[in-house]
Amino acid sequence: LASDFSEDDLIATLFAPIAGAAGLGLLDDAALIDVPDGMQLVATKDAVVAGVHFFASDAPADIARKALRVNISDLAAKGADPLGFLLAILLPPDIDMRWLQSFAQALGEDARAFNCPLLGGDTVHTDGPLSLSITALGSAPRGRMARRTGAKAGDLIYVSGTIGDAALGLRVRAAAEADLPWIELLSDEARAHLLRRYLVPEPRLGLAHAVRSLAHGAMDVSDGMAGDLAKMLRVSRVAGRVDMARIPHSPAVLEAINIEPALRDVALTGGDDYEILCTVALQNAGQFEHAAQTAGIPVARIGAVTPGPSSLPQFFESDGKVRTFAKGSYSHF
Amino acid sequence: LASDFSEDDLIATLFAPIAGAAGLGLLDDAALIDVPDGMQLVATKDAVVAGVHFFASDAPADIARKALRVNISDLAAKGADPLGFLLAILLPPDIDMRWLQSFAQALGEDARAFNCPLLGGDTVHTDGPLSLSITALGSAPRGRMARRTGAKAGDLIYVSGTIGDAALGLRVRAAAEADLPWIELLSDEARAHLLRRYLVPEPRLGLAHAVRSLAHGAMDVSDGMAGDLAKMLRVSRVAGRVDMARIPHSPAVLEAINIEPALRDVALTGGDDYEILCTVALQNAGQFEHAAQTAGIPVARIGAVTPGPSSLPQFFESDGKVRTFAKGSYSHF
Repeated sequence: LASDFSEDDLIATLFAPIAGAAGLGLLDDAALIDVPDGMQLVATKDAVVAGVHFFASDAPADIARKALRVNISDLAAKGADPLGFLLAILLPPDIDMRWLQSFAQALGEDARAFNCPLLGGDTVHTDGPLSLSITALGSAPRGRMARRTGAKAGDLIYVSGTIGDAALGLRVRAAAEADLPWIELLSDEARAHLLRRYLVPEPRLGLAHAVRSLAHGAMDVSDGMAGDLAKMLRVSRVAGRVDMARIPHSPAVLEAINIEPALRDVALTGGDDYEILCTVALQNAGQFEHAAQTAGIPVARIGAVTPGPSSLPQFFESDGKVRTFAKGSYSHF
Repeated sequence: LASDFSEDDLIATLFAPIAGAAGLGLLDDAALIDVPDGMQLVATKDAVVAGVHFFASDAPADIARKALRVNISDLAAKGADPLGFLLAILLPPDIDMRWLQSFAQALGEDARAFNCPLLGGDTVHTDGPLSLSITALGSAPRGRMARRTGAKAGDLIYVSGTIGDAALGLRVRAAAEADLPWIELLSDEARAHLLRRYLVPEPRLGLAHAVRSLAHGAMDVSDGMAGDLAKMLRVSRVAGRVDMARIPHSPAVLEAINIEPALRDVALTGGDDYEILCTVALQNAGQFEHAAQTAGIPVARIGAVTPGPSSLPQFFESDGKVRTFAKGSYSHF
């Protein structure tokens, strides 16, 4: 069991090998990081807890990837380049070394893949649930970090990837308890896709430079697209409208909605998409779409920002009906 | 109960008012921090968990102060100036708004006192113990952060403040369960002093500039002085000797040792001192002592670094006997 090993042992065997140079071999009390002159530091912190954000029985590799990726997703949506991350792990007594080895290996793979090295952290044994708290650090040229507050009337609203996969994937993951008929009717392929998107999000780091150069307002979609858009418009003091037919859904989500139409609302208000939602001035739209294409990340133009005062975004159905989602946000809290 | 409030409510009412400008009103997904040109970022992360690092029944203000101060202590020992901190809170269901208000108020007071503003974070409800994970960010001139690995043969070994108060204070705090006779024999004043030092450490930020300018090796004493010194000497590949009569103890610790001599070892190997342990070249000793005096922080010259190969430091008793502390370190883990 991991409790048989000292914190120093765990650091030396599992974490020091995956640490970046700025982590000083994890031998010091702090990491020492160069923020290049002319750049500002972008810092974000997300904690994930067993039973809240993931299932304790999820594979350790998936837990590691999700914990890091939800933080990298925040950096990407701010237009920041990763500098590295710090990790606090609260370990319950039943975690064994094999679990920790899988966890550390996946964490190291993702750290390399996203160029976001481990820099430091803390390990504590507790009787509580497995909890991971990550602080991700990034940099952006001075004055260029994309803000939630930056959306402007006349901007086009873009979202990356597809929306709703993870919200339905969560229901697939929890199906053993819930036993929902639509899940039985899904194709195996669709079921696997939704589950995968829930377990391991794909941070859109390839869009970061386009976002910081071209977007006015930006955030990642983590608590449901309808609610997150409402948040961005509110703090930007503007309104907006969305063409629902333009919201990008995967074939798996479309298959699920076809079986059970009520799932469309789940897809729009459920959490864990980790896509980028941003607004771009009309004259920059072509350049933004081109940059996304070059990065190999699909983006969809789903609507437009309209003048304030701020109000809930209006979602237009293809038949012209208008909807708003008052409680459009999924809260982990 | 806090669970009746959304995360957005808690942020808006409790945390946004104590946030610094770089926290962007806690309305965005990330903080945006200026690291002045020519400075490097110093980042440290310590988690504190109820039942491990503090008692769930401790006053919320003390819990807040300790969580922040143990991180600021790391910045101080590295010679860094605070830039701010990010906080993840895992809240158990029985925490109420009054508790959180006291917590946030004390956190805000300390953030101001140490010039270390709240920049962002995450709040999660769990069924586990109250847990706080803080990442503290600081800055130091390029190449000047004090390292654990920097101790050099011939250096003098210094420690700030007094050693062992918190280790005995922990026993006072836990006395209800342990019922130790020496605690009954202590004066009320000594008991209160030890308890206070355990509950609310005093980070030695006033020494940070002297440390980064004048110290070769430096760390904060968090896991017991004997063990922490051994760690610093090992990673610096040197040895050392300590004159035990020079180790600074408070009147309260001396009173306790007088009642129960075995407590001297507890004082030297117990945790939670949060003093600065550093090594300074002989020719800089006068300047270092002067800087400490100017800062109003007592420092004691307790020994000297000797040439490698690294080995456990030798502790000389006043009668000339030599001791080493093989398990000289208290581990929270």
